Amino acid sequence: MHVAVCCVDDSISITVSLFQPLTGYGVAKVLESGHPDYKKGDLVWGFTKWEEHSLVPSSQILFKIEHTDVPLSYYIGILGIPGMTAYAGFFEVGLPKKGDRVFVSAASGAVGQLVGQFAKFTGCYVVGSAGSKDKVDLLKNKLGFDDAFNYKEEPDLNAALKRYFPEGIDIYFENVGGKTLDAVLLNMRVHGRIVVCGMVSQYNLAQPDGVTNLANLIFKRIRIQGFGVADYYQLYPKFLEYVVPKIKEGKIVYVEDIVEGLEKAPPALIGLFSGRNVGKQVIVLARE
Amino acid sequence: MHVAVCCVDDSISITVSLFQPLTGYGVAKVLESGHPDYKKGDLVWGFTKWEEHSLVPSSQILFKIEHTDVPLSYYIGILGIPGMTAYAGFFEVGLPKKGDRVFVSAASGAVGQLVGQFAKFTGCYVVGSAGSKDKVDLLKNKLGFDDAFNYKEEPDLNAALKRYFPEGIDIYFENVGGKTLDAVLLNMRVHGRIVVCGMVSQYNLAQPDGVTNLANLIFKRIRIQGFGVADYYQLYPKFLEYVVPKIKEGKIVYVEDIVEGLEKAPPALIGLFSGRNVGKQVIVLARE
Repeated sequence: MHVAVCCVDDSISITVSLFQPLTGYGVAKVLESGHPDYKKGDLVWGFTKWEEHSLVPSSQILFKIEHTDVPLSYYIGILGIPGMTAYAGFFEVGLPKKGDRVFVSAASGAVGQLVGQFAKFTGCYVVGSAGSKDKVDLLKNKLGFDDAFNYKEEPDLNAALKRYFPEGIDIYFENVGGKTLDAVLLNMRVHGRIVVCGMVSQYNLAQPDGVTNLANLIFKRIRIQGFGVADYYQLYPKFLEYVVPKIKEGKIVYVEDIVEGLEKAPPALIGLFSGRNVGKQVIVLARE
Repeated sequence: MHVAVCCVDDSISITVSLFQPLTGYGVAKVLESGHPDYKKGDLVWGFTKWEEHSLVPSSQILFKIEHTDVPLSYYIGILGIPGMTAYAGFFEVGLPKKGDRVFVSAASGAVGQLVGQFAKFTGCYVVGSAGSKDKVDLLKNKLGFDDAFNYKEEPDLNAALKRYFPEGIDIYFENVGGKTLDAVLLNMRVHGRIVVCGMVSQYNLAQPDGVTNLANLIFKRIRIQGFGVADYYQLYPKFLEYVVPKIKEGKIVYVEDIVEGLEKAPPALIGLFSGRNVGKQVIVLARE
């Protein structure tokens, strides 16, 4: 859920986070440093601002970029917060097993597209939902999902889920909330896990949708768990070990939606909430 | 959530479970047995029927009663399913730590009253809600809760919870669902746990209340987990070790609401849903 403003020539790069719309994650090059861990010329990624040059206080985490043989924009995507979010959420919170049936909403987004691929690496059956034919095609034909559907064409989400998961869902990777969650609750299997990464359909509603099927938590002994990636930063080296070889071997696909120029950031941010973008939204400020 | 029909003279005893209203848990004496583990005269508790004499198939679990120096009705209460439910839910699902702030709804019920006492043994701060002045007095004056309130006298549950938990709730032991859950979600602390034992306010509604504050699961990284006690039966010996000494030393209180005669079972069951009973509802069929 970030609009990334990526600048890797001679400036600190910046991102937009959902709840602090003038800050976020970005990729940048160090121009000057008073901190012993960083020196001029280092490439870093971390929490920055919407600006071309930033002064980053030492208390803020900046991760140094070691692998430069991948696109640098990946550090605000597959190798940054979205990647770590997918990894921590799916593996640490979802506790997947081979054969599990996995449903991912907002499945073509920055996080969802990785969850689906991680699920396939784990031997799961995975179905994604998205909001356009293009996204559904992407999920099925490029990202390796077993199946996918356009939720806008499903007047009865419960019936759609029953069609794709006749035996029920073991893991739901939740990105949207509201009516989708309510339909999923009717289709979970015993001991199912709902990994709550986002509820993007709900944030801008004056009155969020009421979720009515929570009694299924008891009937099916379900766990719903919200998480934040910052609780899992210590896993970053393990995550890189898992994902970097897969990128280099071409076993994993990462779809970005790149626009150029800081002035494109506001409409790109707004586009996230109307489903306009496909894949991780990246804004490039400058290139090396 | 059981109405117990307890008969310990010469018959199998019986209980009413919520979802199978003609079966449930009871205490009984074995009259005849074709199973090597049970012999005539053994006292047992387990899943039986609404009847004075029962034939129990070998596939059904019956626990043998070893400690007979406590009231036998305790085996459908503190030493039976409600006790194991409180123990497994609070300790295994809630993962309490000393100093945690614990909220229990339906706190004077068969399970809630034990959760509150287990919380105090663990060094937690615990507040309960119930639906009458008598129940609130019981919680504060007999069951050792730090505080308690009558939810029927609180038009704004969110404000009530803020009053009792100015720093928020670490563990919510959920027995009621609906509007209470919605208010609790606004008052959870980061990494809080919601242990879903029951949602009794919701079962008989044609349209359950919509829960609208689930986005707090993300903001506060909360875990909500439904559970069933049958997943924890292997802990029964450990549970007895924990609770039997406390009963014998008078450190724990267990409140029962006992009526006599099978004909009282239907109104007692109905009373559970209107909050008429105080404590564990027990129906005695016969006494030794």
